[in-house]
Amino acid sequence: MSTALPFDDIRALIKAMPKPDLDARLAAEKRENVLIKPRGALGRLEEISAHMAAWQGKARPQVNRPLVAIFAGSHGVVAKGVSAYPAGVNRAMLASFSAGHAAINQICKTFDLGLKVFDLAIDLPTADFTESAALEEVACAATMGFGMEAIAGGTDLLCLGEMGIGNTTSAAAIYAALFGGAARDWVGRGTGVDDAGHERKVAAVEAALRLHRSHLADPLEILRRLGGREIAAICGAILAARSERVPVILDGYVVTAAAAILHALDRKALDHCLAGHCSAEGAHARVLAHLKLKPILDLGMRLGEGSGAALAAGVVKAALACHNGMATFAEAAVPEQV
Amino acid sequence: MSTALPFDDIRALIKAMPKPDLDARLAAEKRENVLIKPRGALGRLEEISAHMAAWQGKARPQVNRPLVAIFAGSHGVVAKGVSAYPAGVNRAMLASFSAGHAAINQICKTFDLGLKVFDLAIDLPTADFTESAALEEVACAATMGFGMEAIAGGTDLLCLGEMGIGNTTSAAAIYAALFGGAARDWVGRGTGVDDAGHERKVAAVEAALRLHRSHLADPLEILRRLGGREIAAICGAILAARSERVPVILDGYVVTAAAAILHALDRKALDHCLAGHCSAEGAHARVLAHLKLKPILDLGMRLGEGSGAALAAGVVKAALACHNGMATFAEAAVPEQV
Repeated sequence: MSTALPFDDIRALIKAMPKPDLDARLAAEKRENVLIKPRGALGRLEEISAHMAAWQGKARPQVNRPLVAIFAGSHGVVAKGVSAYPAGVNRAMLASFSAGHAAINQICKTFDLGLKVFDLAIDLPTADFTESAALEEVACAATMGFGMEAIAGGTDLLCLGEMGIGNTTSAAAIYAALFGGAARDWVGRGTGVDDAGHERKVAAVEAALRLHRSHLADPLEILRRLGGREIAAICGAILAARSERVPVILDGYVVTAAAAILHALDRKALDHCLAGHCSAEGAHARVLAHLKLKPILDLGMRLGEGSGAALAAGVVKAALACHNGMATFAEAAVPEQV
Repeated sequence: MSTALPFDDIRALIKAMPKPDLDARLAAEKRENVLIKPRGALGRLEEISAHMAAWQGKARPQVNRPLVAIFAGSHGVVAKGVSAYPAGVNRAMLASFSAGHAAINQICKTFDLGLKVFDLAIDLPTADFTESAALEEVACAATMGFGMEAIAGGTDLLCLGEMGIGNTTSAAAIYAALFGGAARDWVGRGTGVDDAGHERKVAAVEAALRLHRSHLADPLEILRRLGGREIAAICGAILAARSERVPVILDGYVVTAAAAILHALDRKALDHCLAGHCSAEGAHARVLAHLKLKPILDLGMRLGEGSGAALAAGVVKAALACHNGMATFAEAAVPEQV
């Protein structure tokens, strides 16, 4: 921890982040204005096309290899009774992803999205963050590196998801540390805890904030102390995507906690990201407002698995299909505005 | 008009509307509760599955033949300068639909939706409703009958769209007649009229309300006097879908005007309909609230062509894919809530 070399690598990566390609964005916007529709009539779809152009660095952005990456982690804080489900669900859900039985499998099939699941030592929980840091710095930085592998096989749209019993408690602790306020402001019902379970979540976050209070000025310290492996890996995936000009769709409450860490490190770190949806998990709407992210969908979902991001990928595919497939007024000989 | 036989046929059809299959709905809800996810975690997707079950009358609803039906009409009121585009756009857009060049073609390809376009005498505008009724009763009822053909080839999910220069003015007049308030409350920018064009729209709606004021108690009279062929046909399509237990997705401002006519005739007439999206066209959000319809999407779109309904069909397909494709806790041996 004293040398802090691994985290310095992360900081260097953030400093070197590419900027949007404004020429490509402008070209995409110009094309939208001559397609056979009233200007602006496709609303958010037009903004999405411009975003994709800016970050892919192409006037005609494409989604040919969309990928949903799910990161799965295991949380020591589950010992404090913060979840409605036992930790054994983690392994069973990994098996379900492999077998094609989970919600995310069906959504990926519907929209023809690739799916990769990253098992981040699912049988080895992180330390209980109410008692010590969840991860050592070296382990945290290494896990961020694993997350960077998400894009290694190639993709032109990365949807980020997670699975991990206990991880909404971890996300709530991260938000409280980053944004302030009471633990209770950030703690939600997760997979559906009852009132007593909710109180245990609040107590766990309060205990964690007390224990780590003198180390919360650095967002990467917040990540390793209060986070989990899937959250660290998602940070890495977001950064790797940025480096390679791959636009990202964030999922809900837990994925956004990883995003919030990066945003705290650099206000421009999420500029290549779209918010797939607003989760029904308590404070997610507030978090998105903090991060100035406008969700594409708001369907009362709170499943995780990247399900909200994957649904939004359908909208992104439709946006680019319109952008690339529509004729211009000139091509179609449609009379223009009088 | 004095005998009013054709409209009596419509009224009889409304009286005979089938009710939701509550057994099928309950079975779908029960299945959602044992799928491998926290209860309710798929939010609106679960509601959509239950809706589809209730209206298809099947515990395991399916979308195998989704169809987008676009109705195209021509409006005499265009002579009053209410649109930013010339009436010649109507025929050019029909050609674009056939050639696969329009936005709706790309969205249909993205989500594998069928597309049918109904040309409702596009070269024969309705009468200018500021000067007389847009349609005779016989013609209006006949056009409703044409609309019923939308489902004749078979479909299990009907997305309704429209195209017709001038038709947002017609829709605004219908809303003002049905819901009261000033013309200005309901008139929007349509395809993008400037301030002067907006004032001409307001004036046209005001003139129409004055001219027809003693005939606006009957929603079907509102339809024929202030509507257009595409709006009448959509009324027919909604009714035919109801009779055949085909769930419907409504598009935006103009399609919802047809829906509002039926809702005024019978408060239960839209129970089989989902609102695909909230349009950016002025008063659409207010209209949806009046009709107690909760839009699936809210993406600032205002294109018509069924584009919002078709995008929402992607969400509906994903909802049913989850409903039918996910494993249950028992099947997948995932531990249940503790």
